[in-house]
Amino acid sequence: MNYKNLDRLQSYEQLKSLGPASIKALLNAERVASSWVEAGSSLRFNWAALPIEDKHLEVLQTLSDEAFLIDKYRALVNGAVMNTAEKRHVLHHLARGQVGDPVIVDGEDKGAFYRAELTKIESFSAQVRSGQVTGSTGKRFTTVVQIGIGGSDLGPRALYLALKGWAAHEGLATLDAHFISNVDPDDASATLSTINLEETLFVLVSKSGTTLETLTNQLFVTEAMVSAGLDPSAHIVAVTSKSSPLANSREVRQAFFIDDYIGGRYSATSAVGGVVLSIAYGFETFSALLDGAHRADLQALKPSITENAALLDALVGVYLRNVLLFPSTAILPYSQALSRFSAHLQQLDMESNGKSVNRDGEPIAYPTGPVIFGEPGTNGQHSFYQLLHQGTDIVLLQFIGFLHSQYGQDVTVEGSTSQEKLNANLVAQIVAFGRGKEDANANKRFGGNRPSSLLFAERLTPQVLGALLAHYENKVMFQGFVWNINSFDQEGVQLGKVLASSVLDGSKGDATLKAWASIFSL
Amino acid sequence: MNYKNLDRLQSYEQLKSLGPASIKALLNAERVASSWVEAGSSLRFNWAALPIEDKHLEVLQTLSDEAFLIDKYRALVNGAVMNTAEKRHVLHHLARGQVGDPVIVDGEDKGAFYRAELTKIESFSAQVRSGQVTGSTGKRFTTVVQIGIGGSDLGPRALYLALKGWAAHEGLATLDAHFISNVDPDDASATLSTINLEETLFVLVSKSGTTLETLTNQLFVTEAMVSAGLDPSAHIVAVTSKSSPLANSREVRQAFFIDDYIGGRYSATSAVGGVVLSIAYGFETFSALLDGAHRADLQALKPSITENAALLDALVGVYLRNVLLFPSTAILPYSQALSRFSAHLQQLDMESNGKSVNRDGEPIAYPTGPVIFGEPGTNGQHSFYQLLHQGTDIVLLQFIGFLHSQYGQDVTVEGSTSQEKLNANLVAQIVAFGRGKEDANANKRFGGNRPSSLLFAERLTPQVLGALLAHYENKVMFQGFVWNINSFDQEGVQLGKVLASSVLDGSKGDATLKAWASIFSL
Repeated sequence: MNYKNLDRLQSYEQLKSLGPASIKALLNAERVASSWVEAGSSLRFNWAALPIEDKHLEVLQTLSDEAFLIDKYRALVNGAVMNTAEKRHVLHHLARGQVGDPVIVDGEDKGAFYRAELTKIESFSAQVRSGQVTGSTGKRFTTVVQIGIGGSDLGPRALYLALKGWAAHEGLATLDAHFISNVDPDDASATLSTINLEETLFVLVSKSGTTLETLTNQLFVTEAMVSAGLDPSAHIVAVTSKSSPLANSREVRQAFFIDDYIGGRYSATSAVGGVVLSIAYGFETFSALLDGAHRADLQALKPSITENAALLDALVGVYLRNVLLFPSTAILPYSQALSRFSAHLQQLDMESNGKSVNRDGEPIAYPTGPVIFGEPGTNGQHSFYQLLHQGTDIVLLQFIGFLHSQYGQDVTVEGSTSQEKLNANLVAQIVAFGRGKEDANANKRFGGNRPSSLLFAERLTPQVLGALLAHYENKVMFQGFVWNINSFDQEGVQLGKVLASSVLDGSKGDATLKAWASIFSL
Repeated sequence: MNYKNLDRLQSYEQLKSLGPASIKALLNAERVASSWVEAGSSLRFNWAALPIEDKHLEVLQTLSDEAFLIDKYRALVNGAVMNTAEKRHVLHHLARGQVGDPVIVDGEDKGAFYRAELTKIESFSAQVRSGQVTGSTGKRFTTVVQIGIGGSDLGPRALYLALKGWAAHEGLATLDAHFISNVDPDDASATLSTINLEETLFVLVSKSGTTLETLTNQLFVTEAMVSAGLDPSAHIVAVTSKSSPLANSREVRQAFFIDDYIGGRYSATSAVGGVVLSIAYGFETFSALLDGAHRADLQALKPSITENAALLDALVGVYLRNVLLFPSTAILPYSQALSRFSAHLQQLDMESNGKSVNRDGEPIAYPTGPVIFGEPGTNGQHSFYQLLHQGTDIVLLQFIGFLHSQYGQDVTVEGSTSQEKLNANLVAQIVAFGRGKEDANANKRFGGNRPSSLLFAERLTPQVLGALLAHYENKVMFQGFVWNINSFDQEGVQLGKVLASSVLDGSKGDATLKAWASIFSL
């Protein structure tokens, strides 16, 4: 195994010599039926509408082998220091199951550590849900509010929203969850204006226990609780590292632990997502989500790209990004339940792979992570799809669809249910983008050959949701391996932090900074 | 005046010969202080962190003049048929004030028509808010739900959310608003699970009265009302065209009219936004928003790019898109109130200018509309900013900021308020992106020269919000003029609609379509 830049691989030269296949020419019923790859946990990936054929698959497989993608994944789960810049292990897979060997760090079995936290979460969430643990006035908690930003917000929020309809359909007892993230005081104000503090449990999430936004919002809600005559310490739990000031703070009633080996954007399946989701929907639900993610992680070990959806998705993405030079990717879930899933993937992908140096810190000379954006269909169809169909740039499209809706309530209009209309639209879009349409009027012409893939499952259950999340995490990981970058640090966020403190400190003689600051009376 | 493709303009050749100015080299306190342009209604645009200097401004001014941008805008507001493909006038400016001559269509004064609808909205919304108009059981309406998709959803929703904190701060009586848009039945199910139907007024928005998503969701809520023993006709008003089946339907208690001359994505300042916003916040608030938009429309008439923010913003965008070849633009409001504003602009821009043919339907050979995405800061800083700072592609950044928060509630931590921290971060980002930072470690190096602009106002009032909306509408319009495209049709959405009906009709012998459909049991 070795770590080479993409442009030093022979198979990359082969790949560059391959023009795209014509989706228009290839797309037929047989190809649709035969182009499935397993993503794990009954989630499947269809690549029929991607511009690839056998010769591409062969070279992509060679690239996978030449870049040792599966070996690197195995090394990662076995505890290699894959976050090279920060010299850290990368253990988010271990938070949901044992994919590789046991990982011992400083004498601690990390798998046992994550499992112990899960046990704490199981016990505490059950006590909250049963009413055994209450607020300071003895009232049962009906609401849980997560205070966290970035990975402590987007992932857990996307997963919470994704399961709301499913939980209603299952008749599950549910606590309402809200999320406060922004340092903008309007974020906390808006949330506080809709909840009953007496019945609210706050989950404060900060690995370091020093995240400015999170501590500021903690004070915001603490002051509100004191004004309401409540004892805040009965209403706050923390998710933090063992070494953080929050770990043993008297201001929180219990702390759940995370460590430095799971980055924020990969933390939804750790205690960061676990506490709030287990309180909202019960530990069993969160546990099922972990199981689904773990199954996808196992699927991602398969060396063959025709059996490993995350691997294939990653490699096709590289072909479209580095050879065909498409600058962006749209995530298009045809499920309102996934209304914030694209925002989570935007973080996951852009923060992981928006890099210009390789894992050894040397500049690289090829495109890395694309811009990621997306909104649920059919809404997007009435919005930005115009550009996707007829704009001058081509965007890689990733559709996500399910046979069944979440709530299970529906109406029939003109012979079809809403769910059927939703899926008819999804199907129609794949064909419209791929096949296009000739027209004597150029304004009504669709060039076609606009590539898309489909992730499909019968229903968005917790298991499927876990697999969906893990699919993208693993796709991003494989792409990072191909580009030979470190997908697990985020040095690009540091400079802004430093300058922001400087502004709050009077701009420290930096006249330009001061000129900007003075616009805002700072 | 004439209509030429961009690549037939002499000034475009001049522009292409100009390399970008070094933001790093130019960015100093004096430039920050002197680089302001008025956007109207006390909203101002700062271009200090854009890669342009005097020579660029001169050529951009020449381009504006050579392409007759202001003349075309004047022609548009004077009633020229600017939507060439559909042979329609473009009158969204007229919905908020008289910018040009009176426009008479088929003997009707369109300005008078829009004003008459405003009068109806003023009267009806006052009756709802006072409790004079009630639901079928005589209960006062406390909630308003807009049912519409695309332009009938994103703009009104973004504006509603933008004013919630302001209204609370002003102590304004407010009705809660919700929005149902997606044909996914889970969208309506989720909304119905949180409202009291007896106290809810629905606003059904469909120009044609035949939009599939909207009619399906109408039936969804109608069935729920019947089950709850309510008379739906007392709970639904329509916003539609005079010729639509909804115009005189017994199923709605009143209809407010729109026409074919205001496209969905430009309709937030027509009755499409007016009914729901006037009910939620009062007609005076909506009226102030119109006033702000109108002032920005007047500002956009100024021929000098140093006095016309929309014009300058548009032209710099063209330089970055067509000469520097940047593929995407991020909208980054540092205000939680603008949480869905980027989604609205994504529609506005990508649906307007994601085109490959000119206004006469002839193919063009240069890039048009970019991909638009964005989330509020500081949230985005903890998400996709990594790629913005250190990714391999450069993204044009559009910051939006305000001196004051909306709710006006705040806490002081470490000597600064949350609002100050928010703005310190905004300021820090502009400087970090522009100036970058050298470092011996390439992974901690920031290349700088990443361009950004700032739209600034003291507070996000209804007037400022109107100006902000109009700024972007006018920017998109000017860019459409530069690219010589029709920004007012959306032929790219048609093919998907046709194929979706075909799927629901058994795929009509189209084997490929049928193969996709069968995945979803269609």
